[in-house]
Amino acid sequence: MRAAYWYGKKDVRIEEIADSQPGPGQVRLRVKACGICGTDLHEYNEGPFLIPSRPHPLTGMDKGPVILGHEFSAEVESIGQEVDDFTGGERVTVNPLLYCGVCPYCRSGEFNMCVKLGTIGLAADGAFAEYVVVPGDTLHRLPDNVDDVAGAFVEPLAVAIRAVKRSRLEIGQTAAVIGAGPIGLLVLQALINCGASRVFVVEPMPQRRKLALELGAVDTVDPTVVDPGKQIATWTENLRVDRAFECVGNQNAFDTAVKVTGRRAVICQVGMALTPTSVNFLRLWGHEKEITTSSGYSSEFPAAIALLSEGRVNIDPLVTSKIPLGQLVEKGFEVLADSRQDQIKVIVEPGMH
Amino acid sequence: MRAAYWYGKKDVRIEEIADSQPGPGQVRLRVKACGICGTDLHEYNEGPFLIPSRPHPLTGMDKGPVILGHEFSAEVESIGQEVDDFTGGERVTVNPLLYCGVCPYCRSGEFNMCVKLGTIGLAADGAFAEYVVVPGDTLHRLPDNVDDVAGAFVEPLAVAIRAVKRSRLEIGQTAAVIGAGPIGLLVLQALINCGASRVFVVEPMPQRRKLALELGAVDTVDPTVVDPGKQIATWTENLRVDRAFECVGNQNAFDTAVKVTGRRAVICQVGMALTPTSVNFLRLWGHEKEITTSSGYSSEFPAAIALLSEGRVNIDPLVTSKIPLGQLVEKGFEVLADSRQDQIKVIVEPGMH
Repeated sequence: MRAAYWYGKKDVRIEEIADSQPGPGQVRLRVKACGICGTDLHEYNEGPFLIPSRPHPLTGMDKGPVILGHEFSAEVESIGQEVDDFTGGERVTVNPLLYCGVCPYCRSGEFNMCVKLGTIGLAADGAFAEYVVVPGDTLHRLPDNVDDVAGAFVEPLAVAIRAVKRSRLEIGQTAAVIGAGPIGLLVLQALINCGASRVFVVEPMPQRRKLALELGAVDTVDPTVVDPGKQIATWTENLRVDRAFECVGNQNAFDTAVKVTGRRAVICQVGMALTPTSVNFLRLWGHEKEITTSSGYSSEFPAAIALLSEGRVNIDPLVTSKIPLGQLVEKGFEVLADSRQDQIKVIVEPGMH
Repeated sequence: MRAAYWYGKKDVRIEEIADSQPGPGQVRLRVKACGICGTDLHEYNEGPFLIPSRPHPLTGMDKGPVILGHEFSAEVESIGQEVDDFTGGERVTVNPLLYCGVCPYCRSGEFNMCVKLGTIGLAADGAFAEYVVVPGDTLHRLPDNVDDVAGAFVEPLAVAIRAVKRSRLEIGQTAAVIGAGPIGLLVLQALINCGASRVFVVEPMPQRRKLALELGAVDTVDPTVVDPGKQIATWTENLRVDRAFECVGNQNAFDTAVKVTGRRAVICQVGMALTPTSVNFLRLWGHEKEITTSSGYSSEFPAAIALLSEGRVNIDPLVTSKIPLGQLVEKGFEVLADSRQDQIKVIVEPGMH
């Protein structure tokens, strides 16, 4: 089969490799659609980052080479021993978290806090390939009305759902989303589903602001033109918002989150800030603001599938490009790294030729 | 009467002034005991800080001169019109928050978030004086078994109670207190009252660590000798603690709070950090840690009085010195500013000569 191996930063190679068969407890999947995640882009541009740099305690993966890709839909192709729930042909998505199951966090059901946590597509071979072998207990069935591309959005939607849960949003509260990339636009939709009364989106790119309005934002702010704090204050009788979601991961976006929020607000840090952020706690302290973090997902896959199946989250306008596996680097990573291109989500379809 | 006026940093003068009488809705109190707070010390050393630097919207106070002092017990001496609940002679303490009562926060009962918030002893004359005139609705009666000195601890204990509430501590959780000053030692006791199973205290000064053990800490760490994170990890089977209370207000203390906490922990920022703090969100993100802030108190006075009355908080060992008003600067501010002196709480007794 063909697969895209990450060998190091800026070094991803499409190779022809031998098919592997599922062992006990495993299934082999034919990959239908796999989204390119910001994490994949980090790994391509400046990795290894979440790719293990010493042998991973669960998988042994060490500095690659590794097949990236963890946002995907697939069809069950063959089944190893001790897997009873599938017979072949089922349409599925995969919760890519690999956890030990025995640490105190796993035993409390807090799987994303596992002390040995790994992710398929980073600590084990993922889905930028024609086939992928995964543990059978990572599978979630896709309803007929969740198509292959939508199935590749279950994982990022789970990220967005968890972020909203971690923010402890209450019905009727107002919110702001900082950054209208794929995660920001899914957080926006999760917020509306969760009872947010008015959601504002702060985003410099005009096409993304337009998309945010289409997907339910009541208003958007271009932070390169106006001060987002002052603008949102005028829209909210100076109350500003109750919850802010920092979906970028840098100092500017964090400072914006502080500015747009009112007293007793919660700022949810969703984007991964790769360098330390300067926080003026004196300012937060007077307004009793809180900062929470949301790391991936734990048990949010069924909720994400249900929202997609019920048509309560619209992913169609987020798909800006579908490419074959062979163009992963040229039409995927390189295009996404070019800020002049306005790509939201690039979907790799290994069956496309 | 005699009163201590703050004129500017390092400029506090004891003066003889005319007695003022209570207006409508006000009472005049004879001050029995008033603690020196870290905030008073900030104002003395580097103020104005919370002393208004433009006319305060509720009191008109502007850059002083102002009588400091907001942690106090007193006796009702005379009563203005429209105050029906007191007749004179009652022993009381005062919730020093001044709020507008009509902003959206006040109307939600979130008085410490009032958009015009002020504090008696900062935005209005306080209790480093023989008498103080305050609004009648700021008074809380003291039970007979809460003596005058304990009455001066109701305010800082309210700060500690609120910090624990803001941390969302759950029964049986573990906690660490960073900094065993007056607030840290009260947070320690509030935590134990609130069901914390084991509380660790990180503090460089040996006498304060000894006091922390006397007041219920299960163990203490000297951060100048051992790494607090590693030490607390060995005491908790590597889980570290569920809640940390940063009661200092600087980078070192915050970094310690990050180190001593485990996954999904909440760090409560209680101390006021006067300069920005560098926060590595990537590290917090992977462990889904949260940071909350606690700003004074809102409705915590009855709880503080009840805990003192029931003997569930011990303030006696925190009182390291009692001084007359005339020695506020020399035996109060100057001694507290000298880190070689191990003062915890200095109580000013204006009736002492």
